Amino acid sequence: MRLSRTVQSILSHYESDTPGSKANLARILMTGKLAGTGKMVILPVDQGFEHGPARSFAVNPDAYDPNYHLQLAIDAGLNAYTTTLGMMEAVADRAAGRIPLILKLNSSNSWAPEKDSTIHGGIDDALRLGCGAIGFTVYPGSPFFNEMAEEFRELAAEAKALGLAVVLWSYPRGGALSKEGETALDVGAYAAHLAASLGAHIIKVKLPSDHLEQPEAAKVYQTTGIDRASQAARVRHIMQAAYNGTRLVVFSGGNKKGADSLYDDARAIRDGGGHGSIIGRNSFQRPRDEALAMLSQIVDIYKGKA
Amino acid sequence: MRLSRTVQSILSHYESDTPGSKANLARILMTGKLAGTGKMVILPVDQGFEHGPARSFAVNPDAYDPNYHLQLAIDAGLNAYTTTLGMMEAVADRAAGRIPLILKLNSSNSWAPEKDSTIHGGIDDALRLGCGAIGFTVYPGSPFFNEMAEEFRELAAEAKALGLAVVLWSYPRGGALSKEGETALDVGAYAAHLAASLGAHIIKVKLPSDHLEQPEAAKVYQTTGIDRASQAARVRHIMQAAYNGTRLVVFSGGNKKGADSLYDDARAIRDGGGHGSIIGRNSFQRPRDEALAMLSQIVDIYKGKA
Amino acid sequence: MRLSRTVQSILSHYESDTPGSKANLARILMTGKLAGTGKMVILPVDQGFEHGPARSFAVNPDAYDPNYHLQLAIDAGLNAYTTTLGMMEAVADRAAGRIPLILKLNSSNSWAPEKDSTIHGGIDDALRLGCGAIGFTVYPGSPFFNEMAEEFRELAAEAKALGLAVVLWSYPRGGALSKEGETALDVGAYAAHLAASLGAHIIKVKLPSDHLEQPEAAKVYQTTGIDRASQAARVRHIMQAAYNGTRLVVFSGGNKKGADSLYDDARAIRDGGGHGSIIGRNSFQRPRDEALAMLSQIVDIYKGKA
Amino acid sequence: MRLSRTVQSILSHYESDTPGSKANLARILMTGKLAGTGKMVILPVDQGFEHGPARSFAVNPDAYDPNYHLQLAIDAGLNAYTTTLGMMEAVADRAAGRIPLILKLNSSNSWAPEKDSTIHGGIDDALRLGCGAIGFTVYPGSPFFNEMAEEFRELAAEAKALGLAVVLWSYPRGGALSKEGETALDVGAYAAHLAASLGAHIIKVKLPSDHLEQPEAAKVYQTTGIDRASQAARVRHIMQAAYNGTRLVVFSGGNKKGADSLYDDARAIRDGGGHGSIIGRNSFQRPRDEALAMLSQIVDIYKGKA
Amino acid sequence: MRLSRTVQSILSHYESDTPGSKANLARILMTGKLAGTGKMVILPVDQGFEHGPARSFAVNPDAYDPNYHLQLAIDAGLNAYTTTLGMMEAVADRAAGRIPLILKLNSSNSWAPEKDSTIHGGIDDALRLGCGAIGFTVYPGSPFFNEMAEEFRELAAEAKALGLAVVLWSYPRGGALSKEGETALDVGAYAAHLAASLGAHIIKVKLPSDHLEQPEAAKVYQTTGIDRASQAARVRHIMQAAYNGTRLVVFSGGNKKGADSLYDDARAIRDGGGHGSIIGRNSFQRPRDEALAMLSQIVDIYKGKA
Repeated sequence: MRLSRTVQSILSHYESDTPGSKANLARILMTGKLAGTGKMVILPVDQGFEHGPARSFAVNPDAYDPNYHLQLAIDAGLNAYTTTLGMMEAVADRAAGRIPLILKLNSSNSWAPEKDSTIHGGIDDALRLGCGAIGFTVYPGSPFFNEMAEEFRELAAEAKALGLAVVLWSYPRGGALSKEGETALDVGAYAAHLAASLGAHIIKVKLPSDHLEQPEAAKVYQTTGIDRASQAARVRHIMQAAYNGTRLVVFSGGNKKGADSLYDDARAIRDGGGHGSIIGRNSFQRPRDEALAMLSQIVDIYKGKA
Repeated sequence: MRLSRTVQSILSHYESDTPGSKANLARILMTGKLAGTGKMVILPVDQGFEHGPARSFAVNPDAYDPNYHLQLAIDAGLNAYTTTLGMMEAVADRAAGRIPLILKLNSSNSWAPEKDSTIHGGIDDALRLGCGAIGFTVYPGSPFFNEMAEEFRELAAEAKALGLAVVLWSYPRGGALSKEGETALDVGAYAAHLAASLGAHIIKVKLPSDHLEQPEAAKVYQTTGIDRASQAARVRHIMQAAYNGTRLVVFSGGNKKGADSLYDDARAIRDGGGHGSIIGRNSFQRPRDEALAMLSQIVDIYKGKA
Repeated sequence: MRLSRTVQSILSHYESDTPGSKANLARILMTGKLAGTGKMVILPVDQGFEHGPARSFAVNPDAYDPNYHLQLAIDAGLNAYTTTLGMMEAVADRAAGRIPLILKLNSSNSWAPEKDSTIHGGIDDALRLGCGAIGFTVYPGSPFFNEMAEEFRELAAEAKALGLAVVLWSYPRGGALSKEGETALDVGAYAAHLAASLGAHIIKVKLPSDHLEQPEAAKVYQTTGIDRASQAARVRHIMQAAYNGTRLVVFSGGNKKGADSLYDDARAIRDGGGHGSIIGRNSFQRPRDEALAMLSQIVDIYKGKA
Repeated sequence: MRLSRTVQSILSHYESDTPGSKANLARILMTGKLAGTGKMVILPVDQGFEHGPARSFAVNPDAYDPNYHLQLAIDAGLNAYTTTLGMMEAVADRAAGRIPLILKLNSSNSWAPEKDSTIHGGIDDALRLGCGAIGFTVYPGSPFFNEMAEEFRELAAEAKALGLAVVLWSYPRGGALSKEGETALDVGAYAAHLAASLGAHIIKVKLPSDHLEQPEAAKVYQTTGIDRASQAARVRHIMQAAYNGTRLVVFSGGNKKGADSLYDDARAIRDGGGHGSIIGRNSFQRPRDEALAMLSQIVDIYKGKA
Repeated sequence: MRLSRTVQSILSHYESDTPGSKANLARILMTGKLAGTGKMVILPVDQGFEHGPARSFAVNPDAYDPNYHLQLAIDAGLNAYTTTLGMMEAVADRAAGRIPLILKLNSSNSWAPEKDSTIHGGIDDALRLGCGAIGFTVYPGSPFFNEMAEEFRELAAEAKALGLAVVLWSYPRGGALSKEGETALDVGAYAAHLAASLGAHIIKVKLPSDHLEQPEAAKVYQTTGIDRASQAARVRHIMQAAYNGTRLVVFSGGNKKGADSLYDDARAIRDGGGHGSIIGRNSFQRPRDEALAMLSQIVDIYKGKA
């Protein structure tokens, strides 16, 4: 596999990592229709765990089958597929060598009384299932952040030593945060910076609004005139917070919405210097044909063709 | 041992598992009167631990003796026998090679102030006692779910690496769940999906009612028109939630009830595509002859003969 | 050492245990004046830890000396001696080969704010001190039962793997239990059954009263007509709960009381099929001569001579 | 080094300990001006940690220097020096071979909101610093007693296996204990007995008053007529509680007080059969010359010359 | 590298440490413009983690880039650079051999509900990244002090055994401490003494005010006449508390302030016998040229030239 210059440049920012971790990052960046562009689209399927199977799949019952998602990710030419332990075990053997796999190690569920998460997979699972990366979620702002971040620390250190890549979902919630604050710009930038500082290779955050949540931060945003007028500008600020753009950052799609809205998001991510999208419900809650068409258009946007 | 096509097909869904775990699943599926049919009846005895010995055995005092249960499972031609550490130690030597054993690793008791469970056995115990599988219980909805699921994760990972099969009891209770909600259809489907996603090979859930508990889920059930009119339809939905029927699911019998009611349950499980029954109190709280007759009839139902 | 038929028969119920654990059970059963009878009298000394030294020993000051108790157990021809880490270290060297030792690994104290217990010894201690068994206490009913039972699980698994025997004190207390309930028949039977199910080789419970504590259990006792009129009948029911008499069960003496009362207790234990007594304060709070006479009479009762 | 008969007799009570631990006890007992007498004076310096540096050392500023204390202990001919990790690291190299060192592994501080203690050193630290013993503090009566005692258990087991001696500070405080009760005779005897039962080689307790704290114990003290009229009688009772005098017990000096009062204490300890004193603030809060004179007089008292 | 006499003298106080730890201390003391003087200036960058990226870097956007800080530390001729895991990974490879690195292992964040800290790095991280020291923060006074100090104990013991140096931030906060008390002289002296007693090689504290917080300590300060009139006198007292000046102590700059104020601080640290400054926000929240000029002046002050 010959790495593109763009990918080589991205990898150069991971100068202290092992060849194993870099190789797995390279595999993700060199797979699918966006191979070599430095952009990524990833399919995540943990909504059955987080919200229950009917809320996730009843609208498109084929999606009850774990193989459906793997095949969708491959057929759409995505960069990677990520899911929970059980869903991964159900397809890992047939996926071998066909698409990079990211084993998601923790998830919440709709009964969870607290902003905590259940660890359901481990490093050994990732290795035996042929996954090239682990995924983990932390909730900045939650009283459980410390515990989650320290769990992540141990898993990430082990993963890096064994040559895996490390993906961190950094989703502010809980504690003193307002609902609106969860997607505030200052909060999102802080979340991205925390994820980078915890040592993530790939960071997943939500697209930020122009709301400012923390009073002391709001003051700085105003006095220094940080541009937050457009979605692209806000993405650009998130990228600053991710070590001046030297860390890979992908943005999540959130609830199911219209295709045009997804395309606008992708253009803003692209124009703001983000590295791509992670799109779950918006992929598998559409009929397969519609999903493939929508993902194809998003790929074209990241290629600068749409 | 020559595996039937049905069993081979079931095993093919466990594509990422070790030969050891698959062999132990095969042993369970190829034992007893239902050998090769893909259906199972399992005898569980942990009620002495959970409710006390008198409430469990006084009605049929022969059942105070651990050997009684092992012999009943063998004589009825069941697929496997599962019990607690002490009860298993009392019979494991004489059971060797005669019937697959599932060591149940945790149980609650009637004094437990919280919806948590006592771990009383370990993987080493399962191996030294010749058990081919471990059993574990989680309580989705309980504030202890995280802790229990993470205990399970570590035990299951170790069990799989050592070639054991893994059975998970997924019993919603506690927290915000209403009593009726514990057997609600949406809750049961979610419980089965969580168990699958935690990586269980065999899932044990309760037969669901047509009640819907979670408002956001109820909406989806209504708009997508999920059929919940008959017990068989509800079983079919549970099977969907269990990775579209690619995971083994057995249903529990609950409190002691009339034989006809048990037969109706078994027919619904069979017709809905479930893999069988796990029947404790309804087996050993009957006189031995009655229990054997009842179990024989249930075997016939699963064979499609009754 | 040639095992009596009675002892061989008892050992046959521990079919899944290692030769090491069985050898240590055999040593206890083949020691002292009751050797080979299948009956046991054990001297326990942890009252200094649990209630303080003055309340335990001031009435018979010789008993402040650790050696006093060891010598009393040997001279009375008892089956085993059990005490805490420090007391055991003070005599283990001189005891070597003279009497089986059971290292008690946890104890409570009179300041303990909760129904929990302090772990003060470990498996390595038992091995280096030449003890053939470990002793542990759990409190069924206490909010700490889970924690204590799980501590026991780990210690017992290690002990069994290393060929030690395992003795479990199962003393209901705390939580919703009334004071009277601690010695209720249903509670005592449940406690014995839990101890057996946790995998204990020898179970220690209190002699039960005819009180019934748990409403759901009381109903069963009444409808099934469990005999609880005499102390012997109640012992017989406890033995049922201990896997139909296939587990060794010894009963504790409790507070200091008159010798005749102790003899009545011993006859009830014998007639109900129990395996003997564990007598602490009633031994060492009497002058040595009186204690030896009393213990001699109890031995005769278990031999069926008194 | 030739052991005196007195020291040989003391060591004989540690019959189950390793030669390594006995050698380290012997070194303490055979060092300094009291070598061979079976009596000890130990210098402890943890007051800077427990109360802050100014409250400990400002009155005698030379004492800010860690070397001051080591030199004082050596020049006064004491048996051992004990301090915290940092203070020990500051002098361990120059102390090598000159005086036995006891590494104190935990300490409280004046901000601690609860009767708990910070573990600041470990067994590996003791070994690398050439210490022959570890010191640890437990607070009987505190809600943290269980946790502290279990931490001690693990450290002590490791220390003994590696040939170190084990010193336990047993200081009742917290929970239901009154301030006066912390030095009550029944409480002190119980504290000494607990320390012995936890397996300590050397026990450190406070000199007891004639107060009785626990009602059930008070009854026993009165009915059995335990002599508590003089300080020497009270020390004698503590020694009874310490396994009839077969464990080494040293008594602490407490707050700074007049020299005469210290001499009276030492005579009472000597006459009651105690093994010596552990004197911190009363040593280093005096000018060096006064401290040396005072310690010399105490040595003479223990030699029976004053 | 030839060590200056001053540095040799400082190292002589770490007599019990391994050659590895001493070599790493020597590297810090022999690097940069202050090499060999026994004085240090260190650049710390964890403010993005602790307060968020915008509050830290928006005023000087170049500082979003991890490389900016490394280059600033090198160009200013500082002794060492310290930052969090992610920021260190971003530059460790290019820093190799150019400046000593201190991996900061824990940090708080502006959402933390309690005075606790997130551990985000480990000893293995420090070693693989070529760092010669670890940094850790404890909060004396906080209810989490015990937990933090015990985490530090384990990390520091491992670090020392592997030849790393150990830097401890000792920042009183939380619990009963008033805001003013956090920088009180008695509190700062206690914090420095605790850090020394926990075994830190280099101690970081805040410059103290002349406030006295703890009543019992205040009494001693007044009766013994401790000089607290000038900043230099207060630094001198802190150094006393740090084992009479035998431990390396650096003082933090706090919030951004005017350059003259920073110079006054540095002169007071120098005149009071402190070992230098650790200056974060005051370095990188200035334009690079201003920062270099300011740091150059501070170096001159420590050299006695300004």
